[in-house]
Amino acid sequence: MIYADNAATSRMDNEAFEAMMPFLLEDFGNAAQSYSFSRAGKKAIKQARLTIAECIGALPEEIYFTSGGTESDNWAVKGSTLLSGELRETITSEIEHHAILNTCQTIERLGFPVIYLPVDRLGVVKPSLLRDKISSKTKLVSIMLANNEIGTVQPIQELCSIAHENGCLFHTDAVQAVGHIEIDVKKLKVDMLSASAHKFNGPKGIGFLYIKKGTNLLPYLDGGAQEFGIRAGTENIAFIVAMAVALRNNVKHINHSFIELKKLENILISELSKAKIDFIRNGSSLGLPGNINLSFRDVEGEMLLHRLDLLGICVSTGSACNSKKTQISHVIKAIGVPADYEKGTLRISLGKDNSEHDVLRIANELTRIIDSFKNTVFVDKINK
Amino acid sequence: MIYADNAATSRMDNEAFEAMMPFLLEDFGNAAQSYSFSRAGKKAIKQARLTIAECIGALPEEIYFTSGGTESDNWAVKGSTLLSGELRETITSEIEHHAILNTCQTIERLGFPVIYLPVDRLGVVKPSLLRDKISSKTKLVSIMLANNEIGTVQPIQELCSIAHENGCLFHTDAVQAVGHIEIDVKKLKVDMLSASAHKFNGPKGIGFLYIKKGTNLLPYLDGGAQEFGIRAGTENIAFIVAMAVALRNNVKHINHSFIELKKLENILISELSKAKIDFIRNGSSLGLPGNINLSFRDVEGEMLLHRLDLLGICVSTGSACNSKKTQISHVIKAIGVPADYEKGTLRISLGKDNSEHDVLRIANELTRIIDSFKNTVFVDKINK
Repeated sequence: MIYADNAATSRMDNEAFEAMMPFLLEDFGNAAQSYSFSRAGKKAIKQARLTIAECIGALPEEIYFTSGGTESDNWAVKGSTLLSGELRETITSEIEHHAILNTCQTIERLGFPVIYLPVDRLGVVKPSLLRDKISSKTKLVSIMLANNEIGTVQPIQELCSIAHENGCLFHTDAVQAVGHIEIDVKKLKVDMLSASAHKFNGPKGIGFLYIKKGTNLLPYLDGGAQEFGIRAGTENIAFIVAMAVALRNNVKHINHSFIELKKLENILISELSKAKIDFIRNGSSLGLPGNINLSFRDVEGEMLLHRLDLLGICVSTGSACNSKKTQISHVIKAIGVPADYEKGTLRISLGKDNSEHDVLRIANELTRIIDSFKNTVFVDKINK
Repeated sequence: MIYADNAATSRMDNEAFEAMMPFLLEDFGNAAQSYSFSRAGKKAIKQARLTIAECIGALPEEIYFTSGGTESDNWAVKGSTLLSGELRETITSEIEHHAILNTCQTIERLGFPVIYLPVDRLGVVKPSLLRDKISSKTKLVSIMLANNEIGTVQPIQELCSIAHENGCLFHTDAVQAVGHIEIDVKKLKVDMLSASAHKFNGPKGIGFLYIKKGTNLLPYLDGGAQEFGIRAGTENIAFIVAMAVALRNNVKHINHSFIELKKLENILISELSKAKIDFIRNGSSLGLPGNINLSFRDVEGEMLLHRLDLLGICVSTGSACNSKKTQISHVIKAIGVPADYEKGTLRISLGKDNSEHDVLRIANELTRIIDSFKNTVFVDKINK
């Protein structure tokens, strides 16, 4: 099998897997308890928090463990707007993940206005647009760091400083970016940042929210005193440990992976071009490493996905969380892919397990499928 | 080590551990994807939902996976009250877990009134009291099935029918009860029921909310289309599978475990009585199997916990999530434990790994500690 859907989820790092094992079996004590049997778990959580903080330039006490990116996004947006009393405004973009878009719809239903900024052809949120829309009514700006479908990396530093100049909080959904491109929250100056472990070779069902010290955010899960008293629930020690190890390992090789993945991207694109396949590459080649979003002319992305599946190749059409719907994704619509290409959109997302052999095979099979499809259409037309 | 803190968390079931392994390693596909590599995960989630439903007499489509009991409780209370527009009332009890109590405080701050029902000496919520307080203003009644500190099992069926007679929703926090006493949601007639896997030998960080078909509840985590579109976030397949296996195994032996644990309880109590230790047993002996909450006269629970810890015995004082605070727990206060006993409260919670040897040893060590402490106090008094 060639797994080329790493933006949907990624294989767990072996060291991360090994590191969490003791906390699933022997050291099963509840970290909230005061006897010595719980010490290993407590210590492991502390170490994991420190490791994660170091990976993104934060302080350990600024890392709050959650059940994943979705919870982090819900918490950041609702925790800073919904519970403030005043009906102040949120500004986001049209190409956010549904964890942000649907959360924004929820707060809208509650009376909190939301402005959705459009993006340019490459999927970039223009800082000038934010500057036009932001006002004293704005409470929060939430713009994703990198897009899950097309890999576009946003000018977060600039967007964030516009938010701060206007006295607003800035949150970034960095679920696709953490562990894949260098992130330093102190440089970005963001107030909140969401991450999800399974996107960087950690387990599914764990993530974190970075909350800058001094940021006023209401708890999202009320209950026990875990996570400095603002995120309740017995700690998932095993997954917290695995997440930290996975992130550390990814960050350690981040520059090397970046170069390798960009090399693989280029091979794939040049093979398809050599084969004279008619396609558009969405997003920018300067985007997330390994993210290759292509729109093929006059073919169906669904058909490509299933043909590749039969050949043991996993890729995606539209966004991962949206694959049950066959509609054209909101991101592809927002960047204005031409009508004869938009239905033929495929996301190939490479990860550290992929090789040159993989991308050559993907390019080769894609070429064969598209060529054979065109021939079939041609024969069909003759027969009619 | 003698682990006697199973109400705080429990050792993972071996079969549950084995069952989840493939989904941590090989079958790592995102269950939201449509290619064949994701089929194993999808199928496993479906099977787990069915297993869990069967264990509590529900339909599979009434089981919604969450990150644990805390999320389930937050969702049930906030999802049914907070987002309805009208400021209708919630009725709960004084001895709920903090996941309910603190959630109720949050909705109160938002203007939704909450009534906290007192309990009797055994920790029981009297149905007549609910009948007195419930009115047309009430939207939700949330009463826990079994108390985490003293094990008291509430008359849920009766309380629930009072709620329904008055057109209210009924939620029960069954985190301590699921997998330990027989539960049939169709008999109880509850609208919502919270559970947490790590309380019944499943992993930490996974749980579920039972939502009766037709119950109007707003999503708590907005985002992707997972969990029938009302609980977003990439599925934690491994832990969902482990939870189902752990619950199935516990339920399979539920009557046997009940008898065994009650036997161990009786041995412990009778040993302490024989040793002429001055204590009160809190809650009712008809409560949760294995839950033994004792208040010893003129000693400190903290001291007992630490002395037992040195001897390799894990027990609890107050509630698990509350162990950082040395205050007397809200439950012990609510049931009115006399002043000279309340500080000496210890919760011993036995599980399926505990043996007669364990309880004899606990009784023996407790007796020695309390006797030696009393002698020390006596000597101190003479020396003064």
